[in-house]
Amino acid sequence: MMGQSEASSPSLLPMGFVDLLPGEAEAEAHGIAKVMDIFGAHGYERVRPPLLEFESSLLSGAGEALSEQTFRLLDPSSHRMMALRPDITTQIARISQVRLQELPRPLRLSYAGDCIVIGTVGREADRQILQAGIELIGPDHAEADAEVIALGAKALAALNIKHVSFDLSMPVLVWSLLDKTYEGSERDYIIHALDRRDAAAVAEYGGAMAQLLLEMMNASGPADQALERLKALSFPDDLKQHVYRLEASVQALKQRLPDLRLTIDPVDFRGWRYHTGLCVTVFALKSREELGRGGRYLAGNEPACGLTLHPQALLKVAPIQARRPRCLVPQGVGAEILSALHKEGFATIEDLEKTQDPLLLARRLRCSHLWQNGRVEAL
Amino acid sequence: MMGQSEASSPSLLPMGFVDLLPGEAEAEAHGIAKVMDIFGAHGYERVRPPLLEFESSLLSGAGEALSEQTFRLLDPSSHRMMALRPDITTQIARISQVRLQELPRPLRLSYAGDCIVIGTVGREADRQILQAGIELIGPDHAEADAEVIALGAKALAALNIKHVSFDLSMPVLVWSLLDKTYEGSERDYIIHALDRRDAAAVAEYGGAMAQLLLEMMNASGPADQALERLKALSFPDDLKQHVYRLEASVQALKQRLPDLRLTIDPVDFRGWRYHTGLCVTVFALKSREELGRGGRYLAGNEPACGLTLHPQALLKVAPIQARRPRCLVPQGVGAEILSALHKEGFATIEDLEKTQDPLLLARRLRCSHLWQNGRVEAL
Repeated sequence: MMGQSEASSPSLLPMGFVDLLPGEAEAEAHGIAKVMDIFGAHGYERVRPPLLEFESSLLSGAGEALSEQTFRLLDPSSHRMMALRPDITTQIARISQVRLQELPRPLRLSYAGDCIVIGTVGREADRQILQAGIELIGPDHAEADAEVIALGAKALAALNIKHVSFDLSMPVLVWSLLDKTYEGSERDYIIHALDRRDAAAVAEYGGAMAQLLLEMMNASGPADQALERLKALSFPDDLKQHVYRLEASVQALKQRLPDLRLTIDPVDFRGWRYHTGLCVTVFALKSREELGRGGRYLAGNEPACGLTLHPQALLKVAPIQARRPRCLVPQGVGAEILSALHKEGFATIEDLEKTQDPLLLARRLRCSHLWQNGRVEAL
Repeated sequence: MMGQSEASSPSLLPMGFVDLLPGEAEAEAHGIAKVMDIFGAHGYERVRPPLLEFESSLLSGAGEALSEQTFRLLDPSSHRMMALRPDITTQIARISQVRLQELPRPLRLSYAGDCIVIGTVGREADRQILQAGIELIGPDHAEADAEVIALGAKALAALNIKHVSFDLSMPVLVWSLLDKTYEGSERDYIIHALDRRDAAAVAEYGGAMAQLLLEMMNASGPADQALERLKALSFPDDLKQHVYRLEASVQALKQRLPDLRLTIDPVDFRGWRYHTGLCVTVFALKSREELGRGGRYLAGNEPACGLTLHPQALLKVAPIQARRPRCLVPQGVGAEILSALHKEGFATIEDLEKTQDPLLLARRLRCSHLWQNGRVEAL
């Protein structure tokens, strides 16, 4: 309803912030509730950290990576800097390490809430980002990896989202190779070349490791096939564990959900600097919309595996929910009738003005139904 | 779990911001969902404005009153000041006037979300405040006032909150009297005296209007009784309409909910500067906890009546929700069994380690039940 022509309107929102209107807001709330219900049913207990914290705690550890994307505020009460959360994972790690340190492990937590990022000047992108996710804290084995990813898949299924791909990677494998082989500008160059998938540059500047890196690039594809290729490569002995673990996690995941579409990209490593094991990005197959991401990391000193879904992206690909049908009811209609209509799924719209023409009013108020003569009538 | 002794912990949150832990966060989400379901069932369509907006739009009109309580941020994209919302009502007014101006009236909108206020230095109070509310935009009559307040009462009933009082007032009556009678420091003095309920000061400095003001103070009490007293007072002719309207709204409300506990305080006027008609504060009878407030105002140029509930306060007085019972299930248990357990209301906790002693593990993981031998066993 508000178009480009209103760009000069004083009511226009800052770029990246939107109003959700009737229908949209309901769909979002409904989607979050469904996802959180799936998480809760599988023992992931909900926690709710605040929208802002002291900068020093919010941006420590893994949170540091998001520092440049974070709005700061001065707290007049403590004279310390606070920060609006750009991500919830860091907060869940804090809660698990401080508030819930006495609870036995495995500790399963879930969360849903808004995050705020500064964004990139001049680039259209959401700056208020909804996250709904889970963290499995304590265990570090393939079954734990599989439980988290499988639960993400179940949440998508609950929203009737089909045609998704779970793209797995093992960034620690790439980073370990890079860290043990290259230094300084050579290292930067190889990182850049790998990130661009520039085989020629990797071949020319990769030195002794070039062959292995190129073979890793070529191993990318459907999980079974990629695993076979990866297992045939000659990784340094101390890195082979990562390939075995990747295989074990894939097997555990396939046992849970044999039909899940799994791919592996062994050289997906950028943006996963703090991760210590299996990572995953969830995509909608058609639109390539990123629906969520997660992976294994350290919450404090504890192994943890998490997955964050983006409800706003999910709702772009989820089948549209039928909205409540609206039924006009006369003023003073009995509580039993209202209650029965609500149970049938109707939203009841009361005629406050005691109209002489209920049919006309029902149409005007976007009702599809009308209560008259003791029953619901469709318009 | 985190006590005063940890006051020096670097993880401590800024004053007024809290973590909700397992149980608490679930109860909050459940409470919001229930309230929003009641609102939606009565035709109040949900909208979701963003957490922040340009200062110029968020703090215009009625929003101006909250200016001192509002955190500002510079938007690097537009170089304009943005503000974290201290309240959602202003945003709903904006949406109704700009985005939804074409929708027919009465327009019924609902919302739920967090607000952030600066708070008072050194004073313990929540600074992240959850609001869930409704706005009825367009009509200006007693039935509209009654619909909004009655729906608030229904939402409280849905949460099994009993023993509440709806305290009504007509601040415009007091402000009109003050505006037409007093000026300058005399006016300030009377405002202060009335606000303190200082009968002696009102009598001494109230001049010709002292008698009426004192009688208004004395009229406070249960709605029927207060109305009888108010109707007997000699208001200036142009202000009598407010007394009649108050009476009409009370009658309409009693017709909807005869058992609602209603009181009237005719001199409750501070903090209601922008309101144009009936106002209400909802209290829990025992704790005097404020559960919500609302009233009639102008959304742009349009008559509107709204009510905001405070879910955090509601949950302090609502009966405690039973949490999902936790049931330990062996690894690899079938999807049909899981699904049946979820339908029965269990949260299933999977044994990732294939323990030899499920009973011990179930106890350790806070489970009340255990799936073994093909059935649920209570511990």
